[in-house]
Amino acid sequence: MADLYAQEIHPKHSYAPIRQDGLEVPETAIALDDSPTGPNEPFRIYRTRGPYAEPEVGLPDLRGQWIAGRADVEEIEGRRRNLLDDGSRAAKRGAASEEWRGTTRPVLRAKDGKRVTQMHYARRGEITEEMRFVALREHCEPEKVREAVASGRAIIPNNINHPESEPMIIGNAFLTKINANIGNSAVTSSIREEVDKLRWATRWGADTVMDLSTGNDIHTTREWILRNSPVPIGTVPIYQALEKVNGIAEDLTWEIFRDTVIEQAEQGVDYMTVHAGVRLPYVPLTSKRVTGIVSRGGSIMAGWCLAHHKESFLYENFDELCEIFAAYDVAFSLGDGLRPGSVADANDAAQFAELKTIGELCKRAWDYDVQVMIEGPGHVPLNMIQINNEKEEEWCGGAPFYTLGPLVTDIAPGYDHITSAIGAAHIAMGGTAMLCYVTPKEHLGLPNKDDVKTGVITYKVAAHAADVAKGHPGAREWDDAMSKARFEFRWHDQFALSLDPETAQSFHDETLPAEPAKTAHFCSMCGPKFCSMRISQDIRDEFGDKIDEALNDENRALIADLGIPTFNTDREETIEGEVSPAVAVEGEQEMAREFRELGSNVYLPER
Amino acid sequence: MADLYAQEIHPKHSYAPIRQDGLEVPETAIALDDSPTGPNEPFRIYRTRGPYAEPEVGLPDLRGQWIAGRADVEEIEGRRRNLLDDGSRAAKRGAASEEWRGTTRPVLRAKDGKRVTQMHYARRGEITEEMRFVALREHCEPEKVREAVASGRAIIPNNINHPESEPMIIGNAFLTKINANIGNSAVTSSIREEVDKLRWATRWGADTVMDLSTGNDIHTTREWILRNSPVPIGTVPIYQALEKVNGIAEDLTWEIFRDTVIEQAEQGVDYMTVHAGVRLPYVPLTSKRVTGIVSRGGSIMAGWCLAHHKESFLYENFDELCEIFAAYDVAFSLGDGLRPGSVADANDAAQFAELKTIGELCKRAWDYDVQVMIEGPGHVPLNMIQINNEKEEEWCGGAPFYTLGPLVTDIAPGYDHITSAIGAAHIAMGGTAMLCYVTPKEHLGLPNKDDVKTGVITYKVAAHAADVAKGHPGAREWDDAMSKARFEFRWHDQFALSLDPETAQSFHDETLPAEPAKTAHFCSMCGPKFCSMRISQDIRDEFGDKIDEALNDENRALIADLGIPTFNTDREETIEGEVSPAVAVEGEQEMAREFRELGSNVYLPER
Repeated sequence: MADLYAQEIHPKHSYAPIRQDGLEVPETAIALDDSPTGPNEPFRIYRTRGPYAEPEVGLPDLRGQWIAGRADVEEIEGRRRNLLDDGSRAAKRGAASEEWRGTTRPVLRAKDGKRVTQMHYARRGEITEEMRFVALREHCEPEKVREAVASGRAIIPNNINHPESEPMIIGNAFLTKINANIGNSAVTSSIREEVDKLRWATRWGADTVMDLSTGNDIHTTREWILRNSPVPIGTVPIYQALEKVNGIAEDLTWEIFRDTVIEQAEQGVDYMTVHAGVRLPYVPLTSKRVTGIVSRGGSIMAGWCLAHHKESFLYENFDELCEIFAAYDVAFSLGDGLRPGSVADANDAAQFAELKTIGELCKRAWDYDVQVMIEGPGHVPLNMIQINNEKEEEWCGGAPFYTLGPLVTDIAPGYDHITSAIGAAHIAMGGTAMLCYVTPKEHLGLPNKDDVKTGVITYKVAAHAADVAKGHPGAREWDDAMSKARFEFRWHDQFALSLDPETAQSFHDETLPAEPAKTAHFCSMCGPKFCSMRISQDIRDEFGDKIDEALNDENRALIADLGIPTFNTDREETIEGEVSPAVAVEGEQEMAREFRELGSNVYLPER
Repeated sequence: MADLYAQEIHPKHSYAPIRQDGLEVPETAIALDDSPTGPNEPFRIYRTRGPYAEPEVGLPDLRGQWIAGRADVEEIEGRRRNLLDDGSRAAKRGAASEEWRGTTRPVLRAKDGKRVTQMHYARRGEITEEMRFVALREHCEPEKVREAVASGRAIIPNNINHPESEPMIIGNAFLTKINANIGNSAVTSSIREEVDKLRWATRWGADTVMDLSTGNDIHTTREWILRNSPVPIGTVPIYQALEKVNGIAEDLTWEIFRDTVIEQAEQGVDYMTVHAGVRLPYVPLTSKRVTGIVSRGGSIMAGWCLAHHKESFLYENFDELCEIFAAYDVAFSLGDGLRPGSVADANDAAQFAELKTIGELCKRAWDYDVQVMIEGPGHVPLNMIQINNEKEEEWCGGAPFYTLGPLVTDIAPGYDHITSAIGAAHIAMGGTAMLCYVTPKEHLGLPNKDDVKTGVITYKVAAHAADVAKGHPGAREWDDAMSKARFEFRWHDQFALSLDPETAQSFHDETLPAEPAKTAHFCSMCGPKFCSMRISQDIRDEFGDKIDEALNDENRALIADLGIPTFNTDREETIEGEVSPAVAVEGEQEMAREFRELGSNVYLPER
């Protein structure tokens, strides 16, 4: 199975799992070159990629035994696929454009009266294999995971029919996660392309993937994706339900939606976006907006409510939905169907009326032990973001917040991965647990492979920036490893430690392609003659270890008089005790001479 | 002169200057298509590009008469260029690689005892043409500009020897500005390339440009740049001074530096970075840093201080420097030579010791009526940024803050335009007046033309996001114009209103290249069958104007009971009074029928 873990993103990367209590938890080890001061331990990072398999075959079953071991599920016949699940073309053709012929496993469902959700086990005080797996991934105690899941402050999206998935956790107390959206539309894309995007997205760091297909072969595309996905898969079932009624929102019924949810639950979808908070009375609140309703699911339900002048069938039947979710461990992603689609519409009554309703639905789901996350905006100016964190915490009982950006300005189509990463880092620092990526194509088209990669890397930046800001244990170590490599001119390590080694190295090589330049103590920014990093290193080499030998009271006093607080608590010692002999009277001429000799070497390419 | 304003970035853009009191202040007008509700006025945006000219000729003299009119300057012989100013190769060759043969104007300097700075005039209560020009650009009262410049809270960088420049203002109370760095290095680039980068950077929105050349032909490259630049040009004179001593920091002297400053002041450099805050006693405070001193200027001065064990000659001779700056109206950019080069080193004693000293120097410069801005970090975690705004305000008397990013994480080389834009938007919301861009090549190489464009657009995003967050007058109107165009499917307007029309349109056309797709009421994200924007628009068309006709007390009560505060103060009316007839009992069947008929059309590509 080793080859399942081949295809590393850099030669210095290797599959280095944590093996404990019979679990094998994937991690990546990054080999580092020696420092002048000695060798460096390999640097270990969280690994979202999971194993690879032939797309036609699918991934091995990781969780099957754990699930069976709990003896609360049974194999069922299931509804099976109806050809119309794949759309009219498939029905005419008598098959999907490319049928799934890889591994298929029996459909599982909870035995009568049983709830098979991680929240249910957690509340019973049980620590499942999934929780232990997650604890090893997050380097925390299993009990911390259990408590977070039991309280609803974190979720482990793990449908019992998606045994290929590697457990991961979404919650404010854990590493900030990112989601990548894929999926075809009426105008583009094939099944193979979507499986390729799935693998590509997880390769670069997507923690979950949503299949938002709205075109042909929806059922079969999802089957290919689930059987090949090591990460949780989310969907928006109303999209497929709409296809089943030929795109006429008013023709939707609870029965069609319910049937679609069961179809997807039996396939193994781990979380589903449900826009049950779009209530009839809220719809008019959007009519004076600059951009109205921009959520597809939200507008579908708004259209239905107005056509029938009835309350939403999702809201009316929410309890039955909870029973279904509890029988497969599908997690709710309570959708923000009325999220603002422009900064002009941010934080308005429609958005917050829905959020408050979502909070009530969240607690109803918890009554069924169903896991829940709460979707958030959207488009919000930077100064209006924090109140979203506060209201979500207040109204939704601390359930994980899952936001789309938010975009902090509307004027940069083509750069909305950036306009949204600014908001995403900000809202994640405020407690958002998962960030839904935005690609450069947002508002303009469907993302291609390059866009998916750019979106994922950009969101890894936002998520990590938030983890560093939150002081998440271990987060800043990564930055420090990179900075140490940078200071020591370990170019290969800098590439290997970066989120995108290929791009980092190709940018470096554009100006200095030769191999020696990757060990040289300079780069193209300053050229060989002068380098600030080099002079700093030489200063440290010369004086670093002699700092405490001599002290000049006059200079010490000058610094003390500044009364500079040391805002970086990691470096509390910096004000005192670091006055170097260079500023001392004793031996200063000697030092100056030594440094001058040194100085004349500083500017040579090699020393 | 009209052709000077040719080459718009989009066919819908045109040069549309504000003409008032004999001034012609460039602005761009963006023609908009009609809305369903009627025609739209052209949308006007701030224009940084200025006029174009043949690079060999240079730009026309805009400010010469204003300067002469103040009768406080005189023509001087000046030091003229010494061939060594262009480096040893030029000296051998007897000429720079490409001599400047375009317009050259007599060198101006203040008459004896005169100060010719905008701050000096402002403090005398005079409103100069430069201030009136700026007021028209910023759409504010000239007195607001004068007061800000007089108090030191804003600067107008306008060397009397750079009459080609269009006055602009840098201050927290005005639009957030961005700077683009260009310049050659020992290993790359030609004079023509740098002029090309200058025009490219201002084309996309750079408000000022810094020439950081460290290679050959420094003097002549700068001459080409100044004579072709409509925006203020900044430099770091210590770089050229270091070249004059063959890159040996310890060989630098005050006399060489002073001569270099005069050389550049006579050419017309508008602001100069001076690292006078890097004092001898602070240098050891960096010796335990992860990345030491990363500022080139900072490490040059640190190296000099240690080699000679003397206090910085910049600090010691600061008053004489102020006298020189006052004679040409060169503005100080007091450099943060000890800024952190990694998140590990953020906000440490070295950084803040220097900032406090810079604050003292700022006030000394103000005693000479010399304009000042304060440089800031660097690399700072998101949660540690705000204290930088606070200390800069406290210690530097509210002088404009000019920051490099800051980068909020170190792990993404190749994406540091993004890691830094996150920090830049955040620190600008906190009051930073100008943001120095970071390109994707940061830490890896010198930016090429594409990198310059990406850096500029990314920073326009960060600056605008901050202006929106600060509620800067008119800032959000741009977002609203874009969102209205988006909601109305005015694709050409969306392209024209975006910061980068080319990229926006090319992304759209990747999936839907045909011209009809640019007027179609759908896009490739959902395809023609269903579109949320379309359904929202139809909802509004159908019910928007009938909102107040009927009211359903039950639903009104339900919404009121939610007690949703309207966080977006622009939309205070949204909670009350917008319950549409669709949710009323009266005539509901009729409405439902109408909507159903409408609904059956909603999903057609065209209506």
